[in-house]
Amino acid sequence: MISSATLIRDIGEIRRNKPLVHNITNYVVMNITANALLAAGASPVMAHAKEEVAEMASVAGSLVINIGTLSPSWVEAMEIAQKRALERKIPVVLDPVGAGATKYRTEVAVSILSRGVSLVRGNASEIMALAGAAGGTKGVDSTASSDAATGAAKLLLEKGAQAVCISGETDYIISETETCSIANGHPMMPQVTGLGCTATALCGAFLAVNKNAAQAAAHAMGMMGIAGEIAAEKSEGPGSFVPAFLDALYNMQPALVAQKLKLV
Amino acid sequence: MISSATLIRDIGEIRRNKPLVHNITNYVVMNITANALLAAGASPVMAHAKEEVAEMASVAGSLVINIGTLSPSWVEAMEIAQKRALERKIPVVLDPVGAGATKYRTEVAVSILSRGVSLVRGNASEIMALAGAAGGTKGVDSTASSDAATGAAKLLLEKGAQAVCISGETDYIISETETCSIANGHPMMPQVTGLGCTATALCGAFLAVNKNAAQAAAHAMGMMGIAGEIAAEKSEGPGSFVPAFLDALYNMQPALVAQKLKLV
Amino acid sequence: MISSATLIRDIGEIRRNKPLVHNITNYVVMNITANALLAAGASPVMAHAKEEVAEMASVAGSLVINIGTLSPSWVEAMEIAQKRALERKIPVVLDPVGAGATKYRTEVAVSILSRGVSLVRGNASEIMALAGAAGGTKGVDSTASSDAATGAAKLLLEKGAQAVCISGETDYIISETETCSIANGHPMMPQVTGLGCTATALCGAFLAVNKNAAQAAAHAMGMMGIAGEIAAEKSEGPGSFVPAFLDALYNMQPALVAQKLKLV
Repeated sequence: MISSATLIRDIGEIRRNKPLVHNITNYVVMNITANALLAAGASPVMAHAKEEVAEMASVAGSLVINIGTLSPSWVEAMEIAQKRALERKIPVVLDPVGAGATKYRTEVAVSILSRGVSLVRGNASEIMALAGAAGGTKGVDSTASSDAATGAAKLLLEKGAQAVCISGETDYIISETETCSIANGHPMMPQVTGLGCTATALCGAFLAVNKNAAQAAAHAMGMMGIAGEIAAEKSEGPGSFVPAFLDALYNMQPALVAQKLKLV
Repeated sequence: MISSATLIRDIGEIRRNKPLVHNITNYVVMNITANALLAAGASPVMAHAKEEVAEMASVAGSLVINIGTLSPSWVEAMEIAQKRALERKIPVVLDPVGAGATKYRTEVAVSILSRGVSLVRGNASEIMALAGAAGGTKGVDSTASSDAATGAAKLLLEKGAQAVCISGETDYIISETETCSIANGHPMMPQVTGLGCTATALCGAFLAVNKNAAQAAAHAMGMMGIAGEIAAEKSEGPGSFVPAFLDALYNMQPALVAQKLKLV
Repeated sequence: MISSATLIRDIGEIRRNKPLVHNITNYVVMNITANALLAAGASPVMAHAKEEVAEMASVAGSLVINIGTLSPSWVEAMEIAQKRALERKIPVVLDPVGAGATKYRTEVAVSILSRGVSLVRGNASEIMALAGAAGGTKGVDSTASSDAATGAAKLLLEKGAQAVCISGETDYIISETETCSIANGHPMMPQVTGLGCTATALCGAFLAVNKNAAQAAAHAMGMMGIAGEIAAEKSEGPGSFVPAFLDALYNMQPALVAQKLKLV
């Protein structure tokens, strides 16, 4: 589904086209998300007022909806922005942060999914919680094994997602016709807040330049993982990891991508 | 009250148990707070919608309420979460950021205090403003001398706090039966936004693994101060201090704790 | 209008007086903005609840209003705070982030402008969008050339601004009687989110110690640009640029200012 050549091509597309990625995301990660998008060459915009989200989604190349810190007025804005994005047929990416942790989050995530999204990206437990709540997956295994998560991801495809990305030590990307696994990344990455959300935002940038949602998501995860490996080499802990990670996104070279991408 | 041995023990407890710390905190510090909790080994969650805070507090190991950027719907959520935490008898930590600066902040802080908290952590002027507003401390000295602040802290114990931490060049931690002073830290720390809020969040992590609120708070302040000293040695200003500080929390070694902890 | 001597003088004034800068700003940049103000020696406070903004503006040395992530309750608070600041005759700085991108932003920015501000700081397209919406500038060139932007800035002076700063590769600062251009800065700066907002916040600090709004704004832009040049030399990408930039603000030395300031 992907190769270092397709990833290098799309990294170049983002740098050339500087797609506007409209994020409705959580407070914790807004800064690192915006900086990661800029470092990759995209143009981030954050806007969440129902008074303006339709207009912002009207000029964006993709819409990223992240439910990490919800409140009712934001949920309303997410719906307005999503409807406009769907009308314009621009990609919509959903990050169901904490789905399963509270009923409110799970329900909001289900309703966003049901309206139609290009991609859902979450960790195994979020994907399984969302699939469980979306119906039809009685028996979804809470042990978060990758098989159970893959089954949950398939259900999300039935329920309105074009592609699903389950991130973890190995990232799985699934569409109706394709499957891909990427083994890049570093154990330091979950020690930094917001790198999952940042992966989702990068998915938004790649989907804005590539209509194949699964391939675009795989590209985003490959770039994230490679940047994480480079950053881990240059840092001494989760604090120094962050600037090194953003530097790595910014300085990502084709030769490094070709050398480091690990498809499994 | 504490020793390097008890601090080392509780650092290990946090790393082993990864307690979920539910933060309702201000926008400015959410990212550094979450990263500091992760670096120390805890599991941070930020959630503030009244639709979900009770449920989040139901699975948390402690609740941290920080009034740094208030608004009415957040205040309502703080009350809901606090009531649930009190029902479950999990620790509640209050950071009365800017108490005394506006009537609104002071009143909100007083009402959180009056419902009952395990710990209040603030600087001397916040502790005195809160005590003044909580009643009975006419004559609280606005010169912020440590004696006046200690008197204010004692009043807060009467008004519903199990322990009070006054942070500053020397940190004072007081409960009805114990007192402790810690002289760790570095002058660079007040030059970085949110390190007070971060100290409060770390208190939440330590209280989640140690029922003795005063001892747990002292552990948090000791770990903060030691990490600050290490970071100051490795950085060239308040910018490079932040990643170095998070690295120091993450890499904190027992031998360093034993060597550096300064009880006075 | 400015010289390295006046800039050095005002850097010293900020460090000595530690002016309280009240920011009502966007979520993305709150942390870097607060840290930049602290690094420069000022005292940042973020407060946006309509319950407390008047009181906060009553003790502040300046008010900075940034419309980067708007919502109706924040707009209401901006108006309350601005009215109090105008009553007290403390400087009000407006950053019309994204003016022109949505009708809502543009209208909010126009209404803040119309009440009277000491300074508007934006990039050329924001300044032109604001001027266009404020009326009377049919024919404002959307090519964002510096001449068109300068014309737009002059209109903003007529509409209620004492001074206007158009930031870009060269920063232009204009008042009714004076004009100044500053060529400091580095191409890495637009690759970091929030440095424009940070410049606006620093303008707030300089205006708090210098009643000449145009001169104060020019000082802020000079200090930003010099710090950016120093940071670029010490960093390897936009990630490591941020801590280096904050360090450079904090460590800014008169001799460096005198050597590096580029008036054109």
